[in-house]
Amino acid sequence: MFLPIGIDEFIQNSLKEDIPNQDITTKIIVNEESVSKAVLIAKEEMVIAGLDIFQRVFHILNNDISVEIHYTEGSCVKKGDTILELKGNTHALLSGERVALNLLQRMCGIASLTKKFVDAIQNTNCRIADTRKTTPGLRSLEKYAVTIGGGINHRYSLSDAILIKENHIKAGGGIETTLKKVIKEKPHLMSFEIEVESIDELKTAIKYGAKNIMLDNFSPKSCKEAVEICQDKNITLETSGNISLENVRSYAETGVNIISVGKLTHSAPASDISLLIKEL
Amino acid sequence: MFLPIGIDEFIQNSLKEDIPNQDITTKIIVNEESVSKAVLIAKEEMVIAGLDIFQRVFHILNNDISVEIHYTEGSCVKKGDTILELKGNTHALLSGERVALNLLQRMCGIASLTKKFVDAIQNTNCRIADTRKTTPGLRSLEKYAVTIGGGINHRYSLSDAILIKENHIKAGGGIETTLKKVIKEKPHLMSFEIEVESIDELKTAIKYGAKNIMLDNFSPKSCKEAVEICQDKNITLETSGNISLENVRSYAETGVNIISVGKLTHSAPASDISLLIKEL
Amino acid sequence: MFLPIGIDEFIQNSLKEDIPNQDITTKIIVNEESVSKAVLIAKEEMVIAGLDIFQRVFHILNNDISVEIHYTEGSCVKKGDTILELKGNTHALLSGERVALNLLQRMCGIASLTKKFVDAIQNTNCRIADTRKTTPGLRSLEKYAVTIGGGINHRYSLSDAILIKENHIKAGGGIETTLKKVIKEKPHLMSFEIEVESIDELKTAIKYGAKNIMLDNFSPKSCKEAVEICQDKNITLETSGNISLENVRSYAETGVNIISVGKLTHSAPASDISLLIKEL
Amino acid sequence: MFLPIGIDEFIQNSLKEDIPNQDITTKIIVNEESVSKAVLIAKEEMVIAGLDIFQRVFHILNNDISVEIHYTEGSCVKKGDTILELKGNTHALLSGERVALNLLQRMCGIASLTKKFVDAIQNTNCRIADTRKTTPGLRSLEKYAVTIGGGINHRYSLSDAILIKENHIKAGGGIETTLKKVIKEKPHLMSFEIEVESIDELKTAIKYGAKNIMLDNFSPKSCKEAVEICQDKNITLETSGNISLENVRSYAETGVNIISVGKLTHSAPASDISLLIKEL
Amino acid sequence: MFLPIGIDEFIQNSLKEDIPNQDITTKIIVNEESVSKAVLIAKEEMVIAGLDIFQRVFHILNNDISVEIHYTEGSCVKKGDTILELKGNTHALLSGERVALNLLQRMCGIASLTKKFVDAIQNTNCRIADTRKTTPGLRSLEKYAVTIGGGINHRYSLSDAILIKENHIKAGGGIETTLKKVIKEKPHLMSFEIEVESIDELKTAIKYGAKNIMLDNFSPKSCKEAVEICQDKNITLETSGNISLENVRSYAETGVNIISVGKLTHSAPASDISLLIKEL
Amino acid sequence: MFLPIGIDEFIQNSLKEDIPNQDITTKIIVNEESVSKAVLIAKEEMVIAGLDIFQRVFHILNNDISVEIHYTEGSCVKKGDTILELKGNTHALLSGERVALNLLQRMCGIASLTKKFVDAIQNTNCRIADTRKTTPGLRSLEKYAVTIGGGINHRYSLSDAILIKENHIKAGGGIETTLKKVIKEKPHLMSFEIEVESIDELKTAIKYGAKNIMLDNFSPKSCKEAVEICQDKNITLETSGNISLENVRSYAETGVNIISVGKLTHSAPASDISLLIKEL
Repeated sequence: MFLPIGIDEFIQNSLKEDIPNQDITTKIIVNEESVSKAVLIAKEEMVIAGLDIFQRVFHILNNDISVEIHYTEGSCVKKGDTILELKGNTHALLSGERVALNLLQRMCGIASLTKKFVDAIQNTNCRIADTRKTTPGLRSLEKYAVTIGGGINHRYSLSDAILIKENHIKAGGGIETTLKKVIKEKPHLMSFEIEVESIDELKTAIKYGAKNIMLDNFSPKSCKEAVEICQDKNITLETSGNISLENVRSYAETGVNIISVGKLTHSAPASDISLLIKEL
Repeated sequence: MFLPIGIDEFIQNSLKEDIPNQDITTKIIVNEESVSKAVLIAKEEMVIAGLDIFQRVFHILNNDISVEIHYTEGSCVKKGDTILELKGNTHALLSGERVALNLLQRMCGIASLTKKFVDAIQNTNCRIADTRKTTPGLRSLEKYAVTIGGGINHRYSLSDAILIKENHIKAGGGIETTLKKVIKEKPHLMSFEIEVESIDELKTAIKYGAKNIMLDNFSPKSCKEAVEICQDKNITLETSGNISLENVRSYAETGVNIISVGKLTHSAPASDISLLIKEL
Repeated sequence: MFLPIGIDEFIQNSLKEDIPNQDITTKIIVNEESVSKAVLIAKEEMVIAGLDIFQRVFHILNNDISVEIHYTEGSCVKKGDTILELKGNTHALLSGERVALNLLQRMCGIASLTKKFVDAIQNTNCRIADTRKTTPGLRSLEKYAVTIGGGINHRYSLSDAILIKENHIKAGGGIETTLKKVIKEKPHLMSFEIEVESIDELKTAIKYGAKNIMLDNFSPKSCKEAVEICQDKNITLETSGNISLENVRSYAETGVNIISVGKLTHSAPASDISLLIKEL
Repeated sequence: MFLPIGIDEFIQNSLKEDIPNQDITTKIIVNEESVSKAVLIAKEEMVIAGLDIFQRVFHILNNDISVEIHYTEGSCVKKGDTILELKGNTHALLSGERVALNLLQRMCGIASLTKKFVDAIQNTNCRIADTRKTTPGLRSLEKYAVTIGGGINHRYSLSDAILIKENHIKAGGGIETTLKKVIKEKPHLMSFEIEVESIDELKTAIKYGAKNIMLDNFSPKSCKEAVEICQDKNITLETSGNISLENVRSYAETGVNIISVGKLTHSAPASDISLLIKEL
Repeated sequence: MFLPIGIDEFIQNSLKEDIPNQDITTKIIVNEESVSKAVLIAKEEMVIAGLDIFQRVFHILNNDISVEIHYTEGSCVKKGDTILELKGNTHALLSGERVALNLLQRMCGIASLTKKFVDAIQNTNCRIADTRKTTPGLRSLEKYAVTIGGGINHRYSLSDAILIKENHIKAGGGIETTLKKVIKEKPHLMSFEIEVESIDELKTAIKYGAKNIMLDNFSPKSCKEAVEICQDKNITLETSGNISLENVRSYAETGVNIISVGKLTHSAPASDISLLIKEL
Repeated sequence: MFLPIGIDEFIQNSLKEDIPNQDITTKIIVNEESVSKAVLIAKEEMVIAGLDIFQRVFHILNNDISVEIHYTEGSCVKKGDTILELKGNTHALLSGERVALNLLQRMCGIASLTKKFVDAIQNTNCRIADTRKTTPGLRSLEKYAVTIGGGINHRYSLSDAILIKENHIKAGGGIETTLKKVIKEKPHLMSFEIEVESIDELKTAIKYGAKNIMLDNFSPKSCKEAVEICQDKNITLETSGNISLENVRSYAETGVNIISVGKLTHSAPASDISLLIKEL
């Protein structure tokens, strides 16, 4: 089951945010002992991501809620499909609904958008990657959703890989000085990638032995030129910047290895999903 | 300064998520004592929201960073505008950049999308409201951004108002039973709103004295009919469901008082903003 | 079961406060495997409130402790009654006793005092309400205990209703300006109540459409005058200030709707309850 | 300044409990930049305890609030006295008022009740002590308030001294077995006290070398007998159980050394204190 | 089972420290459903301490892991002995291994070193005690490990006993002033110990009635002199400072009651233990 | 200044562990307003590491304490050297002493032991690295201390690099299957290292393209053989297991690149340091 360490505390905090003292509507209307069935309905086509955390929200409120899953993690569902059924204490179902859906809809939205990008470049050798442009507090959930949609994860954090960006080059005194410092001082198990702004910078990066190079805001044409320059050099080329569903294939066909797309996590529209109480 | 109670802990956790042990790139490349200037550039048109928390991220890393603001909270900026300048310790600027931007871009995105909805209905008597469809952990930031864009805030949580939705009516044994229970038991300072699915339900709600009624997934035509029914009855009518920038005006012109739009918070694309290191 | 979100963390912190490293007395005297029976005895008449959290304290220390409840939540017990029996690990029983009792005695004390006020005004149309004068950290427990004693809950927090008090009127530039601002800007689902110091202020409040009015430190005679003024105006009148068990009925008989009593939560004496270890 | 380690986190949590999202009343009525003066008025006679934490609440909301103290910690004030004046941001003053007062009123209440007990036994050799019957989460504040009222602190927790109570004796297999175990195994720097139910148990305790003995629910007459038995034995005698302001002196005059009173912390009525906004 | 209150939060934080986002190695190599057996092997002679927390680490990751213990807490094992076997989800076994071992190896190291000191002084009347020189965050685990090795616990914290050290005497204005203050003001259940630097100070301490005296950095010869001076005075003598396995017996034979050894907790080498995956 | 994100919370928790309610000794003996000077004395030769966190402990207790540093971070000091002087509130100095020293002594101990290993292999091309065998909760402090001693940091966590150990190979179905999986699925910016048990496994690892290889428990002779096999293959060879100050040079001289030593962090004896109060 995919649930990062500490997820229960995150869910508790999310529930407290939505219910600082009590769910007054449910408290007044529904008997505390009431038991219901609820169905989770896809209101549009989507890739399912986040079923484990969705269920965990309800189980934190009431450990006896049972779940019957119709479509497993990663499934593509159509509008109207019933994703799963919940059965148990009505208070828990109604009080947990919004937090559970807020998480699930975001994760399905990210998985679904990722899948569109992945589908758009199928039959190329290119892969779609995410970025660190995630929602504070939700990075592991969002990056997981990207993988469910068929994408790959770039760095998780500033601590697990070196990525020399434009700002670092400026602060470091130019591309050559910076590269030398990194190559000399980097931990032996740490890879580095460098972002280049031009074909000239690309050549410098290659000269100093960079094996992972990000082409920042390159046109497909410049990407193609970059790919040719790197041929047979065992270099992983990544491109990033202004990638859309419309132009992503033109980038993928240049031969770059990775296209990273910030909007997978910072701008994916939430998937439309409803939870409906049914008679038992 | 807009900063909710406990925001420092939220920022610390966000920084730990992005830097579980160290910003290895910056550590290798930049001298610890280095001082830089950085400019914050709008890469597209947007409404600015979140400057206080943006600055707070850097101040938590280094209390001596100075900020010169060019466009204040709520300003509309154009592509290329410099929103503000930061001056101070380069490590703090580079290590805090991503977390600060992730928050700012989301908040500007929400404010900007809200403003588009607000502009679309100008010169009507209708207002745009948010929902509880917010990102877990970020509700107060996101709802604040909605107000910066000209929208109003609906309930903050399940604890501050009663909203009787379809699921509550089903769990409560029908609209009449439910309404009677709520009217009898609600705290004296608590208002209630009821969601209706049809003109018939609307009439029942009115009969039982509901003063806040949400028209769930009504067409503009049905909304208009509802408005006429409610005339001179001192009722606040809200509509929700499938509202887009294209159709929002047709809803507003029916005379409903409030249009609530989930996508303001769950699907607003992040605004495009860059932080660039400049020479001092 | 009544247990607010996050209650386990609250209990853990309470236990750590009482046992920062170890319960040295129990550790020395009692065998770790020892099992006992304990009875919970009411040492005076009281209303029982807090059984769920009482049990939860022991279950956090040892999940296998069994509980047999003789008097359920809300029962009135007499001096000498056995409220419940616990059976299980003696270490857990002895180490959890004080924290569990500290919570239970406070909650029973609040419920019992509330019941005295409620009983004192029976057969009037008035209700007893609590205030925000609660112990920091225990508000939800204390407000819950008030309802067990037959009282109603006023606002939970500054976030769920508007209450315009004397200080707000002063800071807001007078009663008229303040009322106008509130009526214009208040969220549509938010009610407001205004505190008035005199019959004149009461009339102003009515003039501006206030439907919830608090008579601050009014005598029963002035309350009666206020009730007459409000007749047929669909106004909820609340009174507060210097209410005692002796004078509460004279207030209730004036026809006010609500009497709020700070001492329910800030000054209720703890109920006297003992936990006694018995042979098995 | 008396502020226990971690107090800021406690205050933040208390503020979040009272303001889960925003102080809606103040937000609507008062300009964000507004500055006010506020006076803190004693509405009855009391001993002042808790000024440091009272101020800290406001400083956490706004670091620029200035405080002018008229009566320092430990002062006895009369009805109508102005304890201190605050000057600064009106939002902070209004939003922090309730949490600050809830803490201060409780602490003054405890100090004031303690002082009544201390005064009642003046010119005896006896001292008034508190117990572990404190509010979960507030023990250090409440025990501190007891000392301000002239009382002494008993154990802080189960970890800092051994107190063999009736339940331990039962679980430990009788008074003799229990005493032997404790004397043999207690850490060298740890004292122990034993609670006795009768003169016989007292004699047994003395026989085994107990130097701190608690007379549980003894009458003044039995206390006197106990004092005589202990004469010249260098034993500290404590009594506890059903001590009231009325009977406390009769206990003190028996010659016991310490009288511990649970109600100092679990049942002290809050002192009546008001914060009033004044024109600047 | 020995597990201090709040230990789950400590383990969760330890796991997050070692796995800020994911155990990437295990994730790639091992199937999520895979089940394994693992054996815990002693790679040198040691005293076992910490089995409960060791197991708890794995149970927090996966509640279904079963444990078969071969050597219980406190056992002395030889190089090559299998301490226990774990069976269950391979991911949990591999991801929890390091945190679980880091705790267990430290605790076994402390217990083993303690046992060496205890063995070195056997057949004397002296006992080996720990100090407050523990690792921040791990005090209760480390002090517990000392007892498993046969040592006793000195103070847990600054809150549970008075220990007047050289610095206090200096800050307090000399040994006599300080002793008088302590004797007059100490809580009745609080013992005190005083550290002396010379035979003269020892005599002063005795004169003022000190019953627990620490000989700071005394030679065995001076210790012997101190023991003679204290004969028949019912004084507990402790010595501390520069105690090694080589010289500890010479101290114990002087007749001092307690030898406290900082290195038990601050410098015990970790015991060498391996977790090996075996076929099922 | 080296202080990881969240360090203040860590220090607060450490202080609460040592002072759950109050420093009773200091409270009784020392006037609250008292101001002192204290000197920090090295009681043996050592490398200084941890001055920033040492100072931070005192500043959390009292922000006005001034520090005059005589030997900066990384200095080698001799027995008797005064490392720094503190001046300020005596309560803060005495209450913070133990926590501050517990951290500093551990960090200096690690730095000093690291330096001994580094010195032992000087004039070779080999470097000394740490491991993940750190104290739970203190990893970033301990790994930082290693760098102050001249060592390098291996992985920080399971999330920042792939290290295929014996257990992974067993769980993964053998070295070949495992290597293929890792090479195919590893993130593009993630390096991997593989642990081999024999020259045969080394050859397999090379065959599959491993560029970082750990020789597990190899003798110097086998290391030398491994170095020869890897010549001109651009492979980083690491060795680990049973490395001591005595044999480390014989390993370094084989030509391996890195020697990782668990005992740097899990078994470094604390450095001996004293804080002494001096007259002002």
